[in-house]
Amino acid sequence: MSNKFYSKDNLKFLLHEVFPVAELCKREIFKEHSEESLDMILEAADSLSTNHLRPILVEMDNKPPYLENGRIKVHPKMKELMKTFGEDGWISMAAPKKFGGQGVPFTILQATGFIMGAANYSSMAFPFLTSGAAHLIESFATPELQQTFIPKMFAGEWQGTMALTEPGAGSSLSDIVSTAVPTENGYYLVKGQKIFISCGDHDACENMVHLMLARIEGAPAGTKGISLFIVPRSTPDGNGGLTFNDVNTAGVFHKMGYHGAPIAHLIMGEANDCRAWLVGEPNKGLSYMFQMMNEARIGVGCNATSIASAGYYNSLEYANVRTQGRKITEKDPLKPQIPIIEHADVKRMLLFQKAVVEGSLSLVFEATTRLDNYHATVGEERENNFLILELLTPIVKSYPAEMSILTTSAALQCFGGYGYIKEFMAELFFRETRIHSLHEGTTAIHGMDLLGRKMMMNNGKATILLMQQIMQDIEAAQKYDSLRVYANDLAQKIMKLQEVTMHLITVAQSQGPEVYLSDATLFLELFGILAIGWQWIKQGTKVEELKASGTKVYSAEFLQSKQYALQYFFEYEIPKTEGLITRLKSENHVTVVAKAEEIL
Amino acid sequence: MSNKFYSKDNLKFLLHEVFPVAELCKREIFKEHSEESLDMILEAADSLSTNHLRPILVEMDNKPPYLENGRIKVHPKMKELMKTFGEDGWISMAAPKKFGGQGVPFTILQATGFIMGAANYSSMAFPFLTSGAAHLIESFATPELQQTFIPKMFAGEWQGTMALTEPGAGSSLSDIVSTAVPTENGYYLVKGQKIFISCGDHDACENMVHLMLARIEGAPAGTKGISLFIVPRSTPDGNGGLTFNDVNTAGVFHKMGYHGAPIAHLIMGEANDCRAWLVGEPNKGLSYMFQMMNEARIGVGCNATSIASAGYYNSLEYANVRTQGRKITEKDPLKPQIPIIEHADVKRMLLFQKAVVEGSLSLVFEATTRLDNYHATVGEERENNFLILELLTPIVKSYPAEMSILTTSAALQCFGGYGYIKEFMAELFFRETRIHSLHEGTTAIHGMDLLGRKMMMNNGKATILLMQQIMQDIEAAQKYDSLRVYANDLAQKIMKLQEVTMHLITVAQSQGPEVYLSDATLFLELFGILAIGWQWIKQGTKVEELKASGTKVYSAEFLQSKQYALQYFFEYEIPKTEGLITRLKSENHVTVVAKAEEIL
Repeated sequence: MSNKFYSKDNLKFLLHEVFPVAELCKREIFKEHSEESLDMILEAADSLSTNHLRPILVEMDNKPPYLENGRIKVHPKMKELMKTFGEDGWISMAAPKKFGGQGVPFTILQATGFIMGAANYSSMAFPFLTSGAAHLIESFATPELQQTFIPKMFAGEWQGTMALTEPGAGSSLSDIVSTAVPTENGYYLVKGQKIFISCGDHDACENMVHLMLARIEGAPAGTKGISLFIVPRSTPDGNGGLTFNDVNTAGVFHKMGYHGAPIAHLIMGEANDCRAWLVGEPNKGLSYMFQMMNEARIGVGCNATSIASAGYYNSLEYANVRTQGRKITEKDPLKPQIPIIEHADVKRMLLFQKAVVEGSLSLVFEATTRLDNYHATVGEERENNFLILELLTPIVKSYPAEMSILTTSAALQCFGGYGYIKEFMAELFFRETRIHSLHEGTTAIHGMDLLGRKMMMNNGKATILLMQQIMQDIEAAQKYDSLRVYANDLAQKIMKLQEVTMHLITVAQSQGPEVYLSDATLFLELFGILAIGWQWIKQGTKVEELKASGTKVYSAEFLQSKQYALQYFFEYEIPKTEGLITRLKSENHVTVVAKAEEIL
Repeated sequence: MSNKFYSKDNLKFLLHEVFPVAELCKREIFKEHSEESLDMILEAADSLSTNHLRPILVEMDNKPPYLENGRIKVHPKMKELMKTFGEDGWISMAAPKKFGGQGVPFTILQATGFIMGAANYSSMAFPFLTSGAAHLIESFATPELQQTFIPKMFAGEWQGTMALTEPGAGSSLSDIVSTAVPTENGYYLVKGQKIFISCGDHDACENMVHLMLARIEGAPAGTKGISLFIVPRSTPDGNGGLTFNDVNTAGVFHKMGYHGAPIAHLIMGEANDCRAWLVGEPNKGLSYMFQMMNEARIGVGCNATSIASAGYYNSLEYANVRTQGRKITEKDPLKPQIPIIEHADVKRMLLFQKAVVEGSLSLVFEATTRLDNYHATVGEERENNFLILELLTPIVKSYPAEMSILTTSAALQCFGGYGYIKEFMAELFFRETRIHSLHEGTTAIHGMDLLGRKMMMNNGKATILLMQQIMQDIEAAQKYDSLRVYANDLAQKIMKLQEVTMHLITVAQSQGPEVYLSDATLFLELFGILAIGWQWIKQGTKVEELKASGTKVYSAEFLQSKQYALQYFFEYEIPKTEGLITRLKSENHVTVVAKAEEIL
């Protein structure tokens, strides 16, 4: 069992060199922060994660939440932790000052989330869900509602949740059937069932604040008739008292992993007295939700990267200490066995993990700095940041989510038979990360978002902007001998991506949207690999610059290790685009042509 | 939760048409069997699986084996089941008549294993391990030992095991340190620890018979000094009495899945009185073991295919009943939602599973019929069957093992969020199948076996024979319009495989064995995809023949479904070879060049 779950040096490299937070701090809205002050936050996150979150990871896995007398019980330590998350400002960190926050860049919020998630993903879900829900209230609710809910949520006393999914409405949110009926008292009465509500009920907080989607009586069908409500489990009376608000916990789901965080089945309004307060205007709930969704989706990509990182360091440590076998050229069985990291295939599995983890984290920060700059700028710069962010979001969410399944599997494989047993934690990370391609939109949903919406958004402007940026970064890399071959390779593959896109557009025109989108998941995969290749080119350029500068801030091994990971990515991962390109250009559409009854 | 876990029609198609058991029954050693009699065995396996094995799958998963007073307790139903497996002849089925068996072809043994494994993999491990261990005794032990152990094992009263792995000797079997000292009483005294022993101790049988590898005092180091012993947990006194034989159960491993079968940590000879009987000659243990290993490895590939099959039918049923969303062209939210199988991406995930499952099962039978024909023939025919079997074995083991991780993951993905929770079983199959790339040799071991040994064996004769066979099957397929494009594609990819092999041979000559074998796992992957493509070509040809014959034995939907799965395989899986070929031809060997301390 490894105690290391992420690389501090890598985080420094990304946040000081590749996406310098010092640059962000020059912006007006972040001017009270500095690289030093932000580093201190990361140090604090490290300390909290190492001393409090990681030590209870295995315990939380072994004792999942359970239902008792209609309430969900979680690990007893979570109560104390939520207090810490509140008191030490972790929940409010990115919120504006006027709400009691510190207004730190979203980039830093995600960086702390990355550290905590690598230590113990379940435990960090509680505060991060709360700050996400509070953020919705900050953005769209009345000052009165803000005052009622935000301070308690930021204090870690009340848990925030997102209550979207229903038994009949998962991927298809437009099919939400929960209802809301206005009353004369300013609130609505809601009725409905919500499932898969993360941290939807538990005993670590005194109250739950659900950001719930429902339809106001008479609202239009589909997405245009969905409104957003605040539905507390218990209603505050304004004097510190709480009255049960007819939000019943029908059950807790038994998950494969990610055991520490409870996922609830809630029933609102069984007794017809579940009070709900409208957030913003009626029928705009989905658009409010989607504004938050970008952040939540970057968050999922970051969480998946966290778990992949935990898996990587766990297997790296093991590979360095476990001895087994000898070099292929060593035939003497009396010679001692060697650490398994000496075997090329084990190095391959480790470099695979490293290349995906560090490439993904880089892409996460690409997105978060776009978001921060979107908030920090105006006019065209703001719009451009927004467009690129919109385009990148399905990729930032999905590439790490899908790839962490494979990297945690590779980590497990490094352990041999020991990988399959609980004692070494490899199987824990494998089980844990599997949630990420399912929640916050399945991978298929993101494929359709990318190919069906984002690529063509504003007449393809986002795509053009991103391609320009990538070509610019390729040019910077082409200056270096060590990078030129890979930069050229990426440039050529980006051309192919554009060819594929053009091909698909003609397909859309000639054969309609179903055929056009039938392989959207593979298009997303293709784009994802190239986006990570781009991040490696950026990192590789930084490595060359640092080497040329003669700085001693990073060890020679650190820089060399980066270069090997880059080589690995271009030698082993980028070639996977070849098959995807072939497939995406094919004229055979078996998945459209085959009828349901012909799949037996 | 689906009740269907495999396709009877597909099994019939494979065993009547593609690998006709009727042909096998013409052989002298199988002449007492017929297609009808073998079908009856499969029917009986179906009935046992449906009525007794599948009903306890979830229960076994929920209540894993545990240690109590030094003994492992398993699901109480296993005691009764082992009796059934014994009494109804499941354990002895493939054994020769002289040992009380029925001498059925290995193909049929695996087919029953496939059915049972798809129903409940853990439960079938008990009898299959017993018949494997008994087979070793049949082949190499003295008649006296055979008489002592085989009847009890075939009766399901005594559990057979393979006791190879030690804490310091997993992949590197040559590092086994268990010792054996001869005594004057005809037996040896052994001492050592064995870990990961499947069904190594449990309360469903009255005794355990371990086929254990150990070194006789003074034996040469390495693989040349390993001997095979029978080590019963309790020694029979010849009158039905049993005396404890100093085999202690030190623990039971807590696994991620495959919960029904216990995996034990055993300590032999703590009290210096663990008696062991030599099997065959001293120092030949590993070669005996390897003769069984081919069968065990085909078995693993078959088991992985089983679980993938269970995952497939589980998700297929769900996809047909779960409604969510609408056709992309349907914008009216008031129209009812449609079954998710109508969505192209869901069909893609289903066809992926089907193509892998049915392709893998076909390859399993390719191998088993080679083995049966090896036993049934003489001279060159015998040798050729053996060589092709040797070459195919690492592929038959590894392709299903690796791919079932991805197919069970795709099955899980079909369920959306429900895939991650226990109630729908998708996560169970995902956890369960992960063992298969680890046991009976990790995938890396098989890659090295294929590229380092099998490809060059007998001056490459096995490779030449297999390529000739594949080209012959391609030619047969080229006659049909519907298959020609795919047959040509496969022919071209097989050429590329040969190019890659030639390239690697020059690498071996110029850069030595470490570089040569550094991507052996990827070579195995490449070969695996093409081997399954070959199986689909064979199946596709059969489908065309059946269609031309006008037979009504198979429904039009069945044959159409086969054709779609074939198309899927060539459209989506075969293109993956492109990236692998690019990688395998690269001159960059980062996984060899990077030093352990440079991977951070």
